[in-house]
Amino acid sequence: MYFPALDNVIQALSALPGIGRRSALRIAFHILRTDKGRVEQLVLAIKDLKETIIFCKECGGISVQEKCPMCEDSERAADLICVVEEPNDIYTIEKTGEFRGRYHVLNGALSPLDGIGPADLRIKELLHKCDKSNIREVLIATNPTLEGDATAEYIAAQLPDKEIRITRISHGIPTGTTLEFADSSALARSIRSRQDLSLS
Amino acid sequence: MYFPALDNVIQALSALPGIGRRSALRIAFHILRTDKGRVEQLVLAIKDLKETIIFCKECGGISVQEKCPMCEDSERAADLICVVEEPNDIYTIEKTGEFRGRYHVLNGALSPLDGIGPADLRIKELLHKCDKSNIREVLIATNPTLEGDATAEYIAAQLPDKEIRITRISHGIPTGTTLEFADSSALARSIRSRQDLSLS
Repeated sequence: MYFPALDNVIQALSALPGIGRRSALRIAFHILRTDKGRVEQLVLAIKDLKETIIFCKECGGISVQEKCPMCEDSERAADLICVVEEPNDIYTIEKTGEFRGRYHVLNGALSPLDGIGPADLRIKELLHKCDKSNIREVLIATNPTLEGDATAEYIAAQLPDKEIRITRISHGIPTGTTLEFADSSALARSIRSRQDLSLS
Repeated sequence: MYFPALDNVIQALSALPGIGRRSALRIAFHILRTDKGRVEQLVLAIKDLKETIIFCKECGGISVQEKCPMCEDSERAADLICVVEEPNDIYTIEKTGEFRGRYHVLNGALSPLDGIGPADLRIKELLHKCDKSNIREVLIATNPTLEGDATAEYIAAQLPDKEIRITRISHGIPTGTTLEFADSSALARSIRSRQDLSLS
């Protein structure tokens, strides 16, 4: 008994994050029992996502144009950059309403054990931006984890020797958690009470 | 900041079993970072699954024809029926190599708390089959859980008053677990030492 169509879908689904072979099998049977229209909706949604959304050339966040609306928004301070690990962290911070500058997505955090070094992250782009543009403050909002803290310290040490205020979101959110699980008001507080990280 | 394409895919993905909104978001970002070819593979695999695989009219298992190969296989005893909760349980049992009869999928188990009664399962079809055909034995292989055991007892009580041996896979697998997590040799043993469930 071998169904290539079932096998292929299990293989494709288990390549997604957080889905193992058993979950993939359960999802496959769910798809078989779901009416055709809803399955088509899922397929279209995936295709549409891939076709319409790209990463902003400037900040690395998601966008439908080359430059995202936030990077184009002249009402947002261009000299204040908030550094985050992942594109969705932008929306977690936007929900607090505490930040009106620009963003910079690293696409992860330093993690030597996983083989993720500075060259794997968008650190070079950040340093280039700080070097070229007139930046007043860099607020590092990487997750308050071992990796996020190490990344924050690495960036602080690498930033050009200019008059840039380097800050870190404060410990209003418990250490060891990730940004997306923090409650919005705690995150808002930690932005308000952000601390200087400048090495000088 | 609102991206309908992202929102749609999160909604469609979180309708799948075991995927919440946060996992859906993570999967969406994973899709955005995955190269186009692999995303197309996933989309094609889902479409292909839905287009080629159907449920066998006879046993309720998965099939590419109206009647599955197992129901068409004349070398498999037609008078011996193994009753399982889900289509994938068929493959869990097939792996043991201990069963050479036909299958009957219930599509679940009785669960009054979840509002699942006899009419929601393929019990009528099983009773009809036992009534019309010459069945020698019905081996009930529902999960050894509260629901699975209740379903087994319900079916045993409903089967027509004919010379049918009603058996239940034995407690070779620990009570409280589900069939798909049982190890294959324990399941094989429990098929070999199956016990009569006839009420007579």
